[in-house]
Amino acid sequence: MPLTRGQFLCAAAGAAFAQPALRIDAARLRTHIETLSLHGRPPGGRFEDGVSRLGYSDADLAGRALLMRLITLAGAQPRIDAAGNLFARRSGADPSLPPLLIGSHIDSVPSGGNFDGDLGSLASIEILHLLHTRNITTRRSLEAVVWACEEATFAGRSLNGSRAAAGKLEPGELEHTSGGLKKSEAIRRIGGRPDRIEEARIAPGAYHAYLELHIEQGGTLEKEKLPIGVVDGIVAVDRYEVEVEGFANHAGTTPMPERQDALIAASKLVLAVRHAVTGEPGRQVGTVGHFEVHPNAPNVIPGRVRHSIELRDLSAEKLLRIAERIREQAARIAAESGVRIKLENKVHHEAALATPAIQDVIQSSAKSLGLPTMHMPSGAGHDAQMMAQLFPMGMIFVPSRGGISHSPREFTDWADCARGADVLLQSVMALTA
Amino acid sequence: MPLTRGQFLCAAAGAAFAQPALRIDAARLRTHIETLSLHGRPPGGRFEDGVSRLGYSDADLAGRALLMRLITLAGAQPRIDAAGNLFARRSGADPSLPPLLIGSHIDSVPSGGNFDGDLGSLASIEILHLLHTRNITTRRSLEAVVWACEEATFAGRSLNGSRAAAGKLEPGELEHTSGGLKKSEAIRRIGGRPDRIEEARIAPGAYHAYLELHIEQGGTLEKEKLPIGVVDGIVAVDRYEVEVEGFANHAGTTPMPERQDALIAASKLVLAVRHAVTGEPGRQVGTVGHFEVHPNAPNVIPGRVRHSIELRDLSAEKLLRIAERIREQAARIAAESGVRIKLENKVHHEAALATPAIQDVIQSSAKSLGLPTMHMPSGAGHDAQMMAQLFPMGMIFVPSRGGISHSPREFTDWADCARGADVLLQSVMALTA
Repeated sequence: MPLTRGQFLCAAAGAAFAQPALRIDAARLRTHIETLSLHGRPPGGRFEDGVSRLGYSDADLAGRALLMRLITLAGAQPRIDAAGNLFARRSGADPSLPPLLIGSHIDSVPSGGNFDGDLGSLASIEILHLLHTRNITTRRSLEAVVWACEEATFAGRSLNGSRAAAGKLEPGELEHTSGGLKKSEAIRRIGGRPDRIEEARIAPGAYHAYLELHIEQGGTLEKEKLPIGVVDGIVAVDRYEVEVEGFANHAGTTPMPERQDALIAASKLVLAVRHAVTGEPGRQVGTVGHFEVHPNAPNVIPGRVRHSIELRDLSAEKLLRIAERIREQAARIAAESGVRIKLENKVHHEAALATPAIQDVIQSSAKSLGLPTMHMPSGAGHDAQMMAQLFPMGMIFVPSRGGISHSPREFTDWADCARGADVLLQSVMALTA
Repeated sequence: MPLTRGQFLCAAAGAAFAQPALRIDAARLRTHIETLSLHGRPPGGRFEDGVSRLGYSDADLAGRALLMRLITLAGAQPRIDAAGNLFARRSGADPSLPPLLIGSHIDSVPSGGNFDGDLGSLASIEILHLLHTRNITTRRSLEAVVWACEEATFAGRSLNGSRAAAGKLEPGELEHTSGGLKKSEAIRRIGGRPDRIEEARIAPGAYHAYLELHIEQGGTLEKEKLPIGVVDGIVAVDRYEVEVEGFANHAGTTPMPERQDALIAASKLVLAVRHAVTGEPGRQVGTVGHFEVHPNAPNVIPGRVRHSIELRDLSAEKLLRIAERIREQAARIAAESGVRIKLENKVHHEAALATPAIQDVIQSSAKSLGLPTMHMPSGAGHDAQMMAQLFPMGMIFVPSRGGISHSPREFTDWADCARGADVLLQSVMALTA
């Protein structure tokens, strides 16, 4: 049964006054992030060279082993569910209350950074450790989780562990292969039980709420010089596949007026996508990221182009409106360029709104620490969007230097890491009180 | 010593009146084109399914064996030079005169057509056959040639046999490999002597002139409803490589105004190329045919695009003027898109002008057969451009249905094939008289 907004606010205010001195050990948090960075670091590299810690890989296994050690030192028992998600519970005074869940992931993209996922995972375990060493028993139980393979590195599918928990695996997905490894084998590799994958499902309401601390991965907080972002929600994603069909012909012998050049038409469409996306106010984004030309030879007029269009915003309605404008432009371009353009929706991820009451708790927690905040959408996907289908959800963002992520150059000031972890800690105290 | 224009014209007129009844056997020519099409035809395919008869391949070897048989039946001796070019000579009455050279090639692009090269090669051998069976001895000797590997299918290099003949092989080119085969081995495979490749060189003036019958590969003759094109020359080709360097970032978290999207900039440049090319009157063409996006994922803003720009025209000066306009636009686009654009000239093929006196012979020959003509540039490269460096050169074009070539759909009406071969025959009679 969800709490009312008022009940959340009361709890938050109470926590802020009750334990003003409780703080994350910033040096420990940094050390653990640096230690985790060893697993997946390129040979001969340093921290600045980032990591390739792909989900289910040897580096992932080694990182998870480190986290299990940290969980044990925090006085908890590591537990691996059927999907390979790693849990650690600290019991509260009232076991009849659904626990609070906090966490993130530690797998990375190839040549990724040391903060995406790692910060939230290690901060969550650090909170368990702090409560353990200070001998603090919360009223509500607290559970930390490290989700398996969050990044889209296994057969193009992301949120692998949290999707299993939300019961959103696709039919036959365990049979998918990546690098010769079947997904079921990959899950077994990290201690999961693919034959009992259904047991990984979490029932709606089984937890009080889910909180995730994460780097912003964009440049807005840095630009606004603010240490904390309160996430409004995770944007909806619409992905389209476009096929532009012209006619491949000899680049030397075909006069300009007689060409049906698929690349000319596709270039117009790429610009039309940007125009449609920026044509109304708001934070929506649109990207043509994948683009292939056939036959792709300097002396042949392109006969076919296939490309993606990806649109993201909190409002699914706005995305449909933009897609409609793009379709209109595509029809105009096809007519004027003598080509056929097919535009097909391939992916629709719904937006996951953060629970307003949880947003309020995060904001109050930051305020109690003297940290100014701003509300913002998450343009990237997160495990939190799966949890939002089951119980209240909230996310805390900290600044990404230069807005760079999924890159070895990904960096968050250590002080900002500690600030984010402190906001998570205060929010945990409020929500478990 | 080159003939004057007047001497050529006299000879042409004389031939036309002397042998008005001499005609190619159109049915034989068709049969031979159809028979050659068997070698390289896709399994289970028909004539309409085209050929893949790549230079130096088994299909090429089989095709050359057929042509050697036809040469023998035409009363000549096949001769293979050190580069693998296939020659057949019919001696004239005055062996002190340099012979006339006619020919083309029989290799194709992958999934190519049955007319590009084949028509000119088989028509040339057919002329030897006709002179043989009619027992006609020309004053000047006549030699037919089938050039080795004209298409750019071996390590991206075209005109392989004719470049060797013109002494234009690149240093170390015999060491190039394609599909695991070294070029020297490929040449040996078709009977050449790579160790003596220098012997394939033809001395300037060693032949009286070179004539090549070829399909247009464009749609101009068909559109103008004309059976014969008199080629003014083979266009100059300038090829540029462009690198657009932006910054790859997360497609969900990077706000639109902060992007340095290499694909947006490259799309503008693709349109700017077309604009620059069509911005002045003339038959110049410009193409962006090769185009690669990095990292090429739907959820990543493109950080880099590499693409080609190819410009063709008879006037090298016009090409430089167009390139200058493109450079100006590239600078403007780079500035407004926050990217760097590097534009580098990679290939410069000079134009090869057809000898005006030979053009006149071709035109008079067509006229003597009642065939209307038009003058036109060749937008495609041909072995003839190499011969133009050594002695007078001329080319005869026949219509390509729909302007399609380098495709199984390449087709030239059989009547047009015969008309082109007849114009070649009349020109041969004029130039060997």
